Parts: sequence; structure tokens; C-alpha cells
Amino acid sequence: MKIDVVISADYIREDIIKDKVVVVIDMLRATSVITTAIMNGCREVIPLLTVEEAFHMRDVLGKEDCILGGERRAVKIDGFDLSNSPLEYTREKVEGKIVIITTTNGTRALTNCTSAYRIFVGCMLNARSIANKLLELNRDVVIVNAGTNGQFSIDDYICTGFIIKEITKGSNKLDLTDISLTALKLYEDYPVVLEYISNAKHYNVMINLGLKEDINYCVQKNITKIVPEYTKGHIIGIS
Amino acid sequence: MKIDVVISADYIREDIIKDKVVVVIDMLRATSVITTAIMNGCREVIPLLTVEEAFHMRDVLGKEDCILGGERRAVKIDGFDLSNSPLEYTREKVEGKIVIITTTNGTRALTNCTSAYRIFVGCMLNARSIANKLLELNRDVVIVNAGTNGQFSIDDYICTGFIIKEITKGSNKLDLTDISLTALKLYEDYPVVLEYISNAKHYNVMINLGLKEDINYCVQKNITKIVPEYTKGHIIGIS
Repeated sequence: MKIDVVISADYIREDIIKDKVVVVIDMLRATSVITTAIMNGCREVIPLLTVEEAFHMRDVLGKEDCILGGERRAVKIDGFDLSNSPLEYTREKVEGKIVIITTTNGTRALTNCTSAYRIFVGCMLNARSIANKLLELNRDVVIVNAGTNGQFSIDDYICTGFIIKEITKGSNKLDLTDISLTALKLYEDYPVVLEYISNAKHYNVMINLGLKEDINYCVQKNITKIVPEYTKGHIIGIS
Repeated sequence: MKIDVVISADYIREDIIKDKVVVVIDMLRATSVITTAIMNGCREVIPLLTVEEAFHMRDVLGKEDCILGGERRAVKIDGFDLSNSPLEYTREKVEGKIVIITTTNGTRALTNCTSAYRIFVGCMLNARSIANKLLELNRDVVIVNAGTNGQFSIDDYICTGFIIKEITKGSNKLDLTDISLTALKLYEDYPVVLEYISNAKHYNVMINLGLKEDINYCVQKNITKIVPEYTKGHIIGIS
């Protein structure tokens, strides 16, 4: 079982991900939002690239069934129900609903991976369950970091290290590429993730926007067994 | 002074390197070879992409003036004078000569960076001098890792961290991207580079080829003040 890493949505290439099991990570915050929304009982999440597509999808599916969520430059979009804060995706708000989201980095990473064998949505919150699913499938894995505006992002990379750490607890024989191994080492050296990601550019953007509570939420380890899977435009929780 | 990193020759993009000061690193072994050859008095190094171009260049320049060096799959090329081992580029062999080299990763990284403002050749051997040159120029820097066959390579990345560490000793205000900062942290956590790079895939390929002495040579820190610069197809030592 080989594990490779792509460091940003800009670097996703067909030859790297084709027929692989892919995990997309945008821990601050898209994949934490998706995981949380499904954990809190939404029917499905539909990630879309543009604000226009999101409004259009809500018109097609019907307003009463849908919640619009997402961000541009880390802030809420005009006319949307929710921002990109996982704390807003409470059971009260999302249970039984279809959540339509559009975010800067995470959505693009997901929609660029469609040639993969299967696509899962990972974050700190569900790392162990993602790891267990990968061990069960026992195929080559590519962990795709959404990154920030096409750049490597410390938060996604250390989250990758955490997921790999969880995979190493399984019995499968692992073949780690240099970049996977470096992520693992980084996590092992800085298991207090909150402390380490305070070095990330994106962390500081979020702090300046008053989003510290979101960060505190997203760095929690293994709070849910939800494994969101992206198939043909829809994300649902599988077990 | 912003410092960014490109993780392999495959990821060099015009918009990232244009007008930047670029340092190309292929510490095992192309850029260590180039630095050593210049340290030992060769007139210049000409890096070329193919074996055919190398033979042709020797024919053009004249056999008596030239040394052909390089590798394919880490081993010497038929009909070449030297392999890609820096230990072979002694003063006795290279003084006063033109060294024509072709290597799998390093040459490609160099020749892909021609839109940069200036291009330097870095490795562990000359890290401090490279850092001093960058501080003197005080412009945005991109450290390009040659990588191994298009992939991120631990050896080039930790060497990058070492060069950044040397830059931090200067007085300039630094703006480190997340990937630069991670390289720096990695080096700070593993300053005994030889130990850390034993995790690299490429390290193990080299060990299996009996090239341990080359590795021991290449991990030496700051043994020369040579700063090789690549301009219009030629590499010469500047000060």
C-alpha cells in the first residue's frame, strides 16, 4: 500500500491520482465543515465551484430542502445561509437538509480528483476512521492537500501526517514516498497540532478574521467516525 | 525578502520563478558535483539535457579541453570520462577544463529556470556562501529542488532547510512561505542531515549502488565559498 501526497489543488495531475484512493484535505475549513455537516445529519453535501452554480442548484432542488454555505476569502458569501465555519453546521441547522457549499480551495481540490478510484473527505476530526477505511481498501492512496490559493499549506500537511500516523497503526505493509514520510515525521515532531499550525499563513489570516474558535474546533482529533465520500458530485457519509 | 520553494523539477512554473533569484538544489549529487568541479578549478560547467548533446558539445569544443560527466539511473554513461560522483571531480582531473554534464534531475531543473533573474547552484557544501549571496541581492528567492524523477526528495528538501537556516543568520527581514518554513523546521529538528536523509528513497538507491562515500561527502556543511552561477547555458564560479 503506497501512500503519496499532493501538496495543493494546483498540483493534482491525472497520472498521479488516476485509479487511486484519494483523500482530500482542507482542514481549515472545508473538509471539517463537510465532515461536521454529515455528522450532524445532513442528507448530503454538494460541493460546487462557483457562487452562481450554488444558487442555481438551490433553485433546482428547492429552497426548503437546501442550506447554502461557503466562503470567499474566508468570509461568508452574500445571500448564503452559512459561512465556512464548522460551528454553524449544527444538527438544528442541517439535519435532513442538502448542504450546498462553495469554497476557495477545498471544492476545487474535490472536483479535480474525479479520475480517482474513490474520493474521501478527511480532516483531523475523522482521521482515524479515514485511516481505517484506507486500510480496509488496501490500495494505493494519494492524500490531496487543498492548500491555500494553490500553495502548500502547513495545516493540511500536518493533518496529512496525522492521518498517515493513524494508518501506520494498521497491519498493512506501507510504502511511503518521501513527501508522505516527511508529513508523518512532522506530525510526530509536533503532535500538538494547534501549536504547530500557528506558523501557517492561513492560520494568521483566520486569526485576523476572529476565527480562533473555528481553528480550536478543527484541530480536535477523531471526534467522529463519519467517512464522507464524494461520488458524482455528491458527498454522503459511508461506514 | 520572500523565500519560496518548488519541490521538484516537474513543478517549476514560469509565474513562480520569473524575475526571482533562483537556487537550484540537487544535493545527491548534481549540484554537489558542479560545486566541487568549480572548487577544483574547472573553467566552467555546461549542463545539458541529453547524452547526445553532451557528445556533440565535446566535439564542438574539442576533446582535449573537455571532461564529460554525468549519470543515467545514478550510474556512469558509456563513453563518458566521469560518473556523477563528486569524488571523481578532483583538481587533477578538472583543473582548466570545461566540464560537460548531463544528469537525470539536476540538469532539467537548471534548464527549466531560465526566466529567473539569476540562477545559482546550491548544496550543503556551499550553503552559507549561497545564503550570503542571497542576502546581498536582497530580492525574492525561490529555492528549486530538483527532486527525484519529478518527485519531492527528502535530501533536497532538508538541504533547502539548511540554506534557509543560513539565510536567517542575516539581518534581512524574511517572509517565509509555509513550505519554506516547513523546510527550515525540518532542518532545525534534524541538523544531523546524514541521519535524516537515510529515510529518503534516493538515499537507499544510492546505498544499493555502493555510493555511501558520495553521500558522506555531499552532507558536509560549508566546505567551500564557491557560488556557481548558471547563465546562458554556462555555470561559472562567482564571488
